[in-house]
Amino acid sequence: MQKDINMFFILLLYNIDMTNKYFDDIMLKAKNIKIILTDVDGVLTDGSMNFFADADNKVTEIKKFCAYDGIACHILRDCAIKTGIITGGNAPATVFRAKLLGMNFLYQNFLSKRNPFEDILRRTGLQAQQAVYIGDDFIDLPVLRRAGLACSVKTAPQEVKDAAHYITQAAAGEGVLREVAEIVLKARGLWNDVMQRAENGKIGCSPKPELLFIDGKIQNL
Amino acid sequence: MQKDINMFFILLLYNIDMTNKYFDDIMLKAKNIKIILTDVDGVLTDGSMNFFADADNKVTEIKKFCAYDGIACHILRDCAIKTGIITGGNAPATVFRAKLLGMNFLYQNFLSKRNPFEDILRRTGLQAQQAVYIGDDFIDLPVLRRAGLACSVKTAPQEVKDAAHYITQAAAGEGVLREVAEIVLKARGLWNDVMQRAENGKIGCSPKPELLFIDGKIQNL
Amino acid sequence: MQKDINMFFILLLYNIDMTNKYFDDIMLKAKNIKIILTDVDGVLTDGSMNFFADADNKVTEIKKFCAYDGIACHILRDCAIKTGIITGGNAPATVFRAKLLGMNFLYQNFLSKRNPFEDILRRTGLQAQQAVYIGDDFIDLPVLRRAGLACSVKTAPQEVKDAAHYITQAAAGEGVLREVAEIVLKARGLWNDVMQRAENGKIGCSPKPELLFIDGKIQNL
Amino acid sequence: MQKDINMFFILLLYNIDMTNKYFDDIMLKAKNIKIILTDVDGVLTDGSMNFFADADNKVTEIKKFCAYDGIACHILRDCAIKTGIITGGNAPATVFRAKLLGMNFLYQNFLSKRNPFEDILRRTGLQAQQAVYIGDDFIDLPVLRRAGLACSVKTAPQEVKDAAHYITQAAAGEGVLREVAEIVLKARGLWNDVMQRAENGKIGCSPKPELLFIDGKIQNL
Repeated sequence: MQKDINMFFILLLYNIDMTNKYFDDIMLKAKNIKIILTDVDGVLTDGSMNFFADADNKVTEIKKFCAYDGIACHILRDCAIKTGIITGGNAPATVFRAKLLGMNFLYQNFLSKRNPFEDILRRTGLQAQQAVYIGDDFIDLPVLRRAGLACSVKTAPQEVKDAAHYITQAAAGEGVLREVAEIVLKARGLWNDVMQRAENGKIGCSPKPELLFIDGKIQNL
Repeated sequence: MQKDINMFFILLLYNIDMTNKYFDDIMLKAKNIKIILTDVDGVLTDGSMNFFADADNKVTEIKKFCAYDGIACHILRDCAIKTGIITGGNAPATVFRAKLLGMNFLYQNFLSKRNPFEDILRRTGLQAQQAVYIGDDFIDLPVLRRAGLACSVKTAPQEVKDAAHYITQAAAGEGVLREVAEIVLKARGLWNDVMQRAENGKIGCSPKPELLFIDGKIQNL
Repeated sequence: MQKDINMFFILLLYNIDMTNKYFDDIMLKAKNIKIILTDVDGVLTDGSMNFFADADNKVTEIKKFCAYDGIACHILRDCAIKTGIITGGNAPATVFRAKLLGMNFLYQNFLSKRNPFEDILRRTGLQAQQAVYIGDDFIDLPVLRRAGLACSVKTAPQEVKDAAHYITQAAAGEGVLREVAEIVLKARGLWNDVMQRAENGKIGCSPKPELLFIDGKIQNL
Repeated sequence: MQKDINMFFILLLYNIDMTNKYFDDIMLKAKNIKIILTDVDGVLTDGSMNFFADADNKVTEIKKFCAYDGIACHILRDCAIKTGIITGGNAPATVFRAKLLGMNFLYQNFLSKRNPFEDILRRTGLQAQQAVYIGDDFIDLPVLRRAGLACSVKTAPQEVKDAAHYITQAAAGEGVLREVAEIVLKARGLWNDVMQRAENGKIGCSPKPELLFIDGKIQNL
């Protein structure tokens, strides 16, 4: 009995997620990763879609990103791991954020995400098993089936979680990309370098690449 | 004792909602559904009412919708199930969102919702038992009493929950419409089609209808 | 042991708040209430202070109110119970919201709240024991000491909660005013009327008074 | 067994945070404090980064501060304890907020925070052990290693929490500064004065200093 209660405390306090499958296998997959690609809504944000009409009655969208994911992008760039976004949505705020954080790719207006994913592999010369993809809904399924490390979030539909190798402990919009980045950096043996840079105040010092931005409304793949 | 603790874990982990009445009866009602109608504030949003004054001192409202509900509207349209909104509120963002998601009906400025509900039945030639209505407050009671499948949310007042056949597990603004849509699609035997479309990257491909938009301030029913 | 676990379930499921003092005493105080006065930030909102700079670099504040409190104001007006706001803040959105909901009083820019409270009593001819005041921070203490029914929220500092007769179960910005309104309406025997009006689609039909708006920056009391 | 369950209740109800190290030691450190310095994102806010494009397509950031921290700044000013911000970000809303609350220092656009920290010590003539610093991410590590009382939040990475003397019970953006301020005021024996001022409606009455605002983009330290 005493043990049951203790076990219960441990689960509660450390918030252990028993839904993640074999963690060793995830580290093995993460060793290969050279690029981290992600959806926006429900991954980099909490899935809220915030709209209002401005003075000219033009409707505008507020995107709610996360500071932890921002620092993650700086760290990944410092470590020469590429980053990119594939989204069915379309918001100037996402373009701004991708540039600010020094991301490599941004594909907007793609409800069907397979072509952008293949296009990025072609442009970088990488294999699918070298790519992470993080998605949270049915439209992400085709790419989750292809990516070397397929990630999702606790609040995704069961069918999407079943297609993922890893479900983050971080909630959508609260550091999902950061958590996946940490796994990749640790698997690739880069974590000590990151902490060294942190202690010396050198995070985010490496130069930003030019963002490749492709709008699905204009150029179909 | 051991069993009690296990039971406790199961409830905690799977978040089972014991307040829903007989689930079989709900599936039976859901089999008839041809249209899903819903309130906005406290159902499609978390009930927050967000205002600010723009440069011209005109007060503007931000509406906080949910990405999962958005994909649900695309899926319902793909499956020829109609969708609509009846709200006491009034925001350009709601009009924008309803059009973007290819919804069929939007009635704004109706604190009294019975007439819009009957008007939609008349226009579509549907019976009340073929309609879902999702509401969260006292002003939704008259329509909840009429709809074939009356749904509400955990945070609604007890009197409203008592009037509903089904209380969603999803919190307000976090996929309430999505959860109800899934029940209807499964009850009607359409779920395999949806998943097939998902795997093939074909969600949201069907054409959008023209939105019927009626403003209660201008045209009373 | 079995009983302990059951007790635990009951507390978890029904979210019983054991911090509220003697409920009978609260109902007794609520019987006298003719006006409900409240703070804004941390009561009608969750205490978040949301700012941005518009195109002209003028900083603007977004206020995040709650739909349940909105319907509460309509219901109170239907029942001839007056409502008002006393706030240290200053936002056009609050003026808009108070007018939209048909409130009676709005005092802005009053970090010291005693004078506005006394001014409202003088104008209405009411006694302090006929007024509810809801506050969440140290600047509310002087008025909480005066009001007939002093209310606060779970997230208030302990010193403020100690000064309150009633702590709401609703979190700040998630229906605090609604919960207090329901207690007053039930204590005064008006609840059946409210539900009757709800079933008949008649909520919010009574005419709105003109809002008395006093700005502490301009006119000190 | 009975005791275990009781213990469990106590932990759940009072939300005791067992991660904080020796509280006596914290009070000892707090006795020396003359200035409280803090990060913005993930400390004064919940770490959400909210962007939208305005009518001229200029991207704007909404900062989500907390009313409790606002009152804390007024109280600290009343007690002659200085306050300041060192942030890697850059938002007009932060400048507005710092001025409104009568803060002393604001350093923006400093991803590397050591120089601003030393600059503030130089300008005030204070020692590092007389300063609190509150941070939540890797870029805060160098300053957390220097400050007399280093504070962080529950949601910070483990490496950051390990570097802090104190982890707040308040979540990021929900009163972190307020909680730290209360510890300092109590350690310094000023709490009774604060409560006296509260009961007399005298909080925030002391004059505001001119804000020293330094932008890292323009002037490197």
